[in-house]
Amino acid sequence: MKAQAKVLAISGGVGGAKLALGLSRVLGAGELAVLVNTGDDFTHLGLCICPDLDTVLYTLAGVVHPAQGWGRADETFGFMAEARRQGAPDWFALGDRDLVVHVERTRRLAAGERLTHITADFARRFGVDTTILPMSDTPVATLLDTDAGQLEFQHYFVRLRCEPAVRALEFRGASQARPTAELETLLRSPDLQAIVLCPSNPYLSIDPILAVPGLRAALRAARVPLIAVSPLIGGRAVKGPTAKIMGELGVQADLATVVRHYGSLVDGYVVDRVDESAARALGIEFTATQTLMQSLEDRERVADASLELAARLRAAAAPSGRRAS
Amino acid sequence: MKAQAKVLAISGGVGGAKLALGLSRVLGAGELAVLVNTGDDFTHLGLCICPDLDTVLYTLAGVVHPAQGWGRADETFGFMAEARRQGAPDWFALGDRDLVVHVERTRRLAAGERLTHITADFARRFGVDTTILPMSDTPVATLLDTDAGQLEFQHYFVRLRCEPAVRALEFRGASQARPTAELETLLRSPDLQAIVLCPSNPYLSIDPILAVPGLRAALRAARVPLIAVSPLIGGRAVKGPTAKIMGELGVQADLATVVRHYGSLVDGYVVDRVDESAARALGIEFTATQTLMQSLEDRERVADASLELAARLRAAAAPSGRRAS
Repeated sequence: MKAQAKVLAISGGVGGAKLALGLSRVLGAGELAVLVNTGDDFTHLGLCICPDLDTVLYTLAGVVHPAQGWGRADETFGFMAEARRQGAPDWFALGDRDLVVHVERTRRLAAGERLTHITADFARRFGVDTTILPMSDTPVATLLDTDAGQLEFQHYFVRLRCEPAVRALEFRGASQARPTAELETLLRSPDLQAIVLCPSNPYLSIDPILAVPGLRAALRAARVPLIAVSPLIGGRAVKGPTAKIMGELGVQADLATVVRHYGSLVDGYVVDRVDESAARALGIEFTATQTLMQSLEDRERVADASLELAARLRAAAAPSGRRAS
Repeated sequence: MKAQAKVLAISGGVGGAKLALGLSRVLGAGELAVLVNTGDDFTHLGLCICPDLDTVLYTLAGVVHPAQGWGRADETFGFMAEARRQGAPDWFALGDRDLVVHVERTRRLAAGERLTHITADFARRFGVDTTILPMSDTPVATLLDTDAGQLEFQHYFVRLRCEPAVRALEFRGASQARPTAELETLLRSPDLQAIVLCPSNPYLSIDPILAVPGLRAALRAARVPLIAVSPLIGGRAVKGPTAKIMGELGVQADLATVVRHYGSLVDGYVVDRVDESAARALGIEFTATQTLMQSLEDRERVADASLELAARLRAAAAPSGRRAS
């Protein structure tokens, strides 16, 4: 029997998965759950592909490609080479080992199974004791309104390498989505002690999750501190188009904008040391550390900082037992 | 524009594909069409797999594994190794390059496309100028009633290596199947000169094709000689369970049984030299040659023998223009 999760991380792909790995290592077995963005999901060559779920799965299972942060280490590309030769689109890399989860997920979804159930089985097969939860069992598609027209996420992100300028975002299907029973149970559990928003892109990776009706309210109702790790270091994103998109959406790429964006959802921030004075000026609850996660020790340090801040806010809110806010 | 086919071959998998290759080499470009058994088709790991269609495609495209006679030469098995590691059934080998056709066919069938159309596109992609026709666009499943219970074809053939004793065969879905418009057009074409039944297993590979209602009548109505290449050489099958099954079904594994089995459908036989006196005793139209096909020259020799016998029977039937029978 798996331990009840004490911490819920909320994550997109590569960057979020790094912190999720750190959290899984500083917590005990089974004490972490990760709620993962599925707005990036798409159907490609007829296969149902969930890039962020797979990145979190592969990262936690220790099979992720270490340099890329996505896909599998020790991979071969016979399928891809042949698909290319036969004229199929080849802009989205599908490794031969990687294909197993896409093929199996496609089969089970077609048979009417819930993505939550399929994902839980994958975690078991990969020996992952962290609970991995898709944000929704029904499809939500992140669409980008850009200067190159409306684009599905993977076309923007992978095929066009984030080059088009983004004007607006839409989460198609979000209004029909609902938090899963598994997430609701977890958020109501007396064992839950903290929620950690990973340093994923707030607009592309976290907003689709928060767009699921009822999910934001369920997070608040959990009455545990919600800690966000800032995705910016001195106004720059570690990786990916966060700062570029903020500029295109007409906001400053800085901590103040992130804090305004998350608003009352977040109780405290883990910021990089370079943003310490900015955090102090904003009057927010925070802790400062080096947030760049290159080594495994970095991941664990940021994880520890998040959990320590959550513990501090929990203690400050006692004895009422109410959530700090 | 592709030439109109002059010869229609009727084939199962490995053995039939060898003769189809020989025919394609002795005929001009586009002059061959092959009608292929789809009774072996099955869904595996959620993928629609058509083993005989693929064997014919790979053989004609020159990419087939030369020793096996099925699957692809120069193949890798990353998908299979990973599927096995994750606990998926691994008794049916799916190579990484091979997977491309299964994934693409599954996608297009799910989108409502006809197998005939998908197969034609595959042939084009592989640079094959032979017309490859599935026996039906609707599924027909060859089921074997055995001493190990009722088995789907691939479970009998691959998983259990033809070990169970066969009592009876059933072609599920055959009554709903129909000859395709493409086959009917070809059989009505004035360009058609011969039909060649390949030396595939009459019970497992040819009977499912003949079980499609209206197909047998359409073959006869074509009014061209129908030549069968005997699958037996002196009472033994070259490969596969033909002789074993004949024994289990209570018939002699010899030319006489094959001739009785095909009955009035076949106008003449290509038999091995060892069966020459048997053929003469049966009073059938025949030609004798070495029918074992090991080299490319063997395939061409048997192809030539088939076409020469067809030409002889066609000439004998002139000037009425009616089919010899």
